[in-house]
Amino acid sequence: MENFEKSSDPSPLNIKEMQEYSRRFIEDRDWTEFHTPKNIAMGISVEAAELLEIFQWLTPEQSFQIKSNSGELQRVSDEVGDILHLLIRLSSLLNIDLKQAFWEKIKKTEKKYPISLSKGKTAKYSRLSHD
Amino acid sequence: MENFEKSSDPSPLNIKEMQEYSRRFIEDRDWTEFHTPKNIAMGISVEAAELLEIFQWLTPEQSFQIKSNSGELQRVSDEVGDILHLLIRLSSLLNIDLKQAFWEKIKKTEKKYPISLSKGKTAKYSRLSHD
Amino acid sequence: MENFEKSSDPSPLNIKEMQEYSRRFIEDRDWTEFHTPKNIAMGISVEAAELLEIFQWLTPEQSFQIKSNSGELQRVSDEVGDILHLLIRLSSLLNIDLKQAFWEKIKKTEKKYPISLSKGKTAKYSRLSHD
Amino acid sequence: MENFEKSSDPSPLNIKEMQEYSRRFIEDRDWTEFHTPKNIAMGISVEAAELLEIFQWLTPEQSFQIKSNSGELQRVSDEVGDILHLLIRLSSLLNIDLKQAFWEKIKKTEKKYPISLSKGKTAKYSRLSHD
Repeated sequence: MENFEKSSDPSPLNIKEMQEYSRRFIEDRDWTEFHTPKNIAMGISVEAAELLEIFQWLTPEQSFQIKSNSGELQRVSDEVGDILHLLIRLSSLLNIDLKQAFWEKIKKTEKKYPISLSKGKTAKYSRLSHD
Repeated sequence: MENFEKSSDPSPLNIKEMQEYSRRFIEDRDWTEFHTPKNIAMGISVEAAELLEIFQWLTPEQSFQIKSNSGELQRVSDEVGDILHLLIRLSSLLNIDLKQAFWEKIKKTEKKYPISLSKGKTAKYSRLSHD
Repeated sequence: MENFEKSSDPSPLNIKEMQEYSRRFIEDRDWTEFHTPKNIAMGISVEAAELLEIFQWLTPEQSFQIKSNSGELQRVSDEVGDILHLLIRLSSLLNIDLKQAFWEKIKKTEKKYPISLSKGKTAKYSRLSHD
Repeated sequence: MENFEKSSDPSPLNIKEMQEYSRRFIEDRDWTEFHTPKNIAMGISVEAAELLEIFQWLTPEQSFQIKSNSGELQRVSDEVGDILHLLIRLSSLLNIDLKQAFWEKIKKTEKKYPISLSKGKTAKYSRLSHD
């Protein structure tokens, strides 16, 4: 219906295939004992900060312009890939369904920030309600 | 209702649908101006730390036992959902293909940590190679 | 000599007194076993993200204006206090001299970013040198 | 040369001197415009994650043994120095008294986690009170 360009139509993620590949990757290196949920959660924070570092000194406008800087965009893509890998790994270890986690949480956030109270404001709901 | 073994076969993620839903969620609240790539990257670090906090005081063993504590597991699932939402949002803003980001990065990591040098060690490759 | 206002002349930090107080605080609550260096490092990331969250949606200009918003400034001060507490705790556990850590590291950073190469640029030195 | 037992009696931090040195360091490099409170807060998260990374794969016991590994201990000290530098920088920009921030916050934490309710537990007070 909508006249999307190809780039706006990303492929679905086959989580099962990604989990399997990741598991084998870890087992091949005998890293299983290091992969506690606690250590994976640490890894997500570490990778998230490497992503953050790319944007650290940029103005808001420059942070959009990364889109046309192929070197920096590749760095962003690599960090995004790392974070996604660790989310997939954690979901595998704790038997969390990523799809369900996404939809459940966004529905909760919709309730927490109702449109009428949230328009154009980013404050926490707890404070919004006192405005 | 669904005839589906969640743990063994997680559903694929329909990224396009998630991106569209997220975009509408943001637009409905007039939050578009706040959603610079820089601010989204900050959000990922903030949510990653909320995930980290859940595991902060746990022993390695306890971090696995979260699997059978439904309350704590729900907290983990909510944070995972938030991080995934922000990854999807960032990929949408910068036109990054999440599937490609995952596979490209895991292939790079495989080269950086070859099985023969990495077995049972977690040190950075740069240091591994000097061992 | 310089005609500083009172607020510009902060008191020296008595690290020993702070370490002692913190140690007693932890022992009184039987928290010693939880205070591994690893867990304290996690705590620093958690508190740093709580600080980050305060600034998440602000423009660069608004991030300065926090100075005149006593409620938000108190939040910042509280997070700064938490991070400093955990730095003091970690330095105590690992026998690190905070004063020496500060001066040693700033001297290294001065060498890594020489004034002539760094003026007005924030890129990493490794990339600066290729400009 | 100095007749001084480092571990038992760390030197007080002369915050004023550190703030002045840091200000000159920034001005010499024309970095003032980049040093918004928002960007400094991002820097603290980035450095905190670099500290976290050192401990990521260590067992609780190994995280104590870093004390006798001079190379790793130096890495920890460098990250601690960076975080302290940024705390000092932020306190300078927002006119926060670090000493006061520490003592105010630890007193609040003492009230939030009273000894009688907190002994040997690390759960948040909000949940403690419902136990």
